[in-house]
Amino acid sequence: MLAVALSLYTEVTVEEADHLSITSEGEGSELPADMTHLAARVAAKIVGHDRLAINVRSDIPVGRGLGSSASLAVAAAAAAGAADPLKEAAAVDGHPENAAASVLGGLVAATTVNGAPVAVELALDPELRFVVLVPNRPLATHRAREALPAQVPHADAAFNLGRLGLLIAGLADHRMLLRDATDDRLHQTARTPLFPESSHLMAGLVEAGALAACWSGAGPSLLGICTAEASSRVQTAGEQLLKDTGVPGRALLLEADHGGVVTG
Amino acid sequence: MLAVALSLYTEVTVEEADHLSITSEGEGSELPADMTHLAARVAAKIVGHDRLAINVRSDIPVGRGLGSSASLAVAAAAAAGAADPLKEAAAVDGHPENAAASVLGGLVAATTVNGAPVAVELALDPELRFVVLVPNRPLATHRAREALPAQVPHADAAFNLGRLGLLIAGLADHRMLLRDATDDRLHQTARTPLFPESSHLMAGLVEAGALAACWSGAGPSLLGICTAEASSRVQTAGEQLLKDTGVPGRALLLEADHGGVVTG
Repeated sequence: MLAVALSLYTEVTVEEADHLSITSEGEGSELPADMTHLAARVAAKIVGHDRLAINVRSDIPVGRGLGSSASLAVAAAAAAGAADPLKEAAAVDGHPENAAASVLGGLVAATTVNGAPVAVELALDPELRFVVLVPNRPLATHRAREALPAQVPHADAAFNLGRLGLLIAGLADHRMLLRDATDDRLHQTARTPLFPESSHLMAGLVEAGALAACWSGAGPSLLGICTAEASSRVQTAGEQLLKDTGVPGRALLLEADHGGVVTG
Repeated sequence: MLAVALSLYTEVTVEEADHLSITSEGEGSELPADMTHLAARVAAKIVGHDRLAINVRSDIPVGRGLGSSASLAVAAAAAAGAADPLKEAAAVDGHPENAAASVLGGLVAATTVNGAPVAVELALDPELRFVVLVPNRPLATHRAREALPAQVPHADAAFNLGRLGLLIAGLADHRMLLRDATDDRLHQTARTPLFPESSHLMAGLVEAGALAACWSGAGPSLLGICTAEASSRVQTAGEQLLKDTGVPGRALLLEADHGGVVTG
C-alpha cells in the first residue's frame, strides 16, 4: 500500500548506560518508561542488551492512524545502529508502508514479500499539501482491524485496485487527482461505525477545496489532499468542521518530508 | 487497473454507403461481416444508421487477452466521428483500461467512476519492452471471468493492492521492477486450471531475463516485461518455451505505443 512521509517528526537518542532509562517529551510521553516502550524493545534487540539511556521526542500523536509507532521504531532502530531500520521497524510494527515512508521520505509503495518488507518510491507532486484532521480521541488500531470483514466481494477488491491506480497518478500530478481516487470499499466503510462523523468531515474537506480526502491509516485521523494554494482555506475549514460536528481535535497543515530517516 | 498500449494496431475506416458492408483483413477477418461485428455496432450507433462501408485491418489476435475488441471499438468509434471514443468503447467492451490504453497510448490506469470510464496516464520507463506469448488457442473471456470467485479474502485484496503499488513504481523505473510485483491472488491462480502451462511459461520468461511476468488481461497471452537489452533473449526463450511445453503459439517482441488513437 501507499504511505506518504509528512512533516511531523520523532527524534530518538540511544546511549550505553548502567541500566535502562527512558526520557520522553511531546506526544507519547505518557507511555510507561520501561521495557514495554517500543523504543526500548527495538533498541535493546539491536544492541543486544537493555543497559541503555533512551531519549524520545515526538510530534506525532499516538493511536491516531498517523504511523507514530512505525516512526518511533524506525528512529529507535536507526539510533541503535541498525543496518536496516526498515526491516527492524516493519518486524515490530507490521506496517511496512508506514516504516518505509519514515525511512525513505516522500511517497512510497510498500508491502511484504516472502516475509520481508519491500518498498519503492513513487512520484509525488511538490504542489501537494496535506491537511490532517486529528481527533483528540484515539481509535484503537486493533478495534479498527477487527472491523474489517474476513472476506470481500471480488468486485470490491477490483474497485480498490482501480482507485489505487487513479490515486497514484493523481499524487504524481495533482491536475489528475480526482476526488473519486480515494474512494474505498475495503476499509473506510467498515470502519465508519467507529467514527460516524468521518464521512461528513471528509466531504467538508473536499467542499472547502481539497482535491480528495481519505482516512489516514486505520484512523481516526482524516487526510485532505490539496494544493498549496488551497491549503490554508482547507485547514481553516477543517478546524471549523471539527467544531461544528462536536469532534474535539486539531487540523494540521503538513507538507511531504523528503529526507526520510536522518542519523548522526 | 492498468493497461499498456503495445505496438500492434487496428485500423478502421467508415464511409457513408447505400447499405452495410464490412471488409476485413488480418486478425479477426473470419468474424461475420454483418451487424454482429463490433465495428459495425459501434459505428452505426455513432452515425445513427447502418448504411456504412466499413474496412477493418488488425494486427491484434482475437480472444487472447490482448484487448483486440477494445482496440477495434476505439478505432471504429474514432473513424465514425465519436466525440469521446473512450466512452463509446468502454460502453461496449466493459474494459475501461483496455480502451483507455488504445485511446491515450502508453501506460494508463483506468476504472469506472459513477458509470463513466476514467483514465489517467502513468509514467512508463522507455527502457521497457514486452515479450508476449500468444497461444494459438483462444481462451473465452466469459470462461476466464467465470473462473473468478465471487468473494475473496480481505488479505488477498490487500496483497494485490500492495503488488499494484510495486508494479506501478517498477513500470516507471525498471530498476525498481521486482519479479514479485506481478504476483497476484485475485485472478491468475483462479484461471490457471484453464491454462495449466501458464505458470511454467511465466517462470521461464523470468528465468530467461524478463524482470517480471504476468497474464495479459484474462489470458491466455502471457507478458514478459523486460529491458530492451534482454528482450531478444527473452523472445527467443519464449518461442522455445512454447515448443517445449507443447503450446502452439508465437512470442512477439513489442514496445509501448505512445501515440494512442490517430484519426484523419
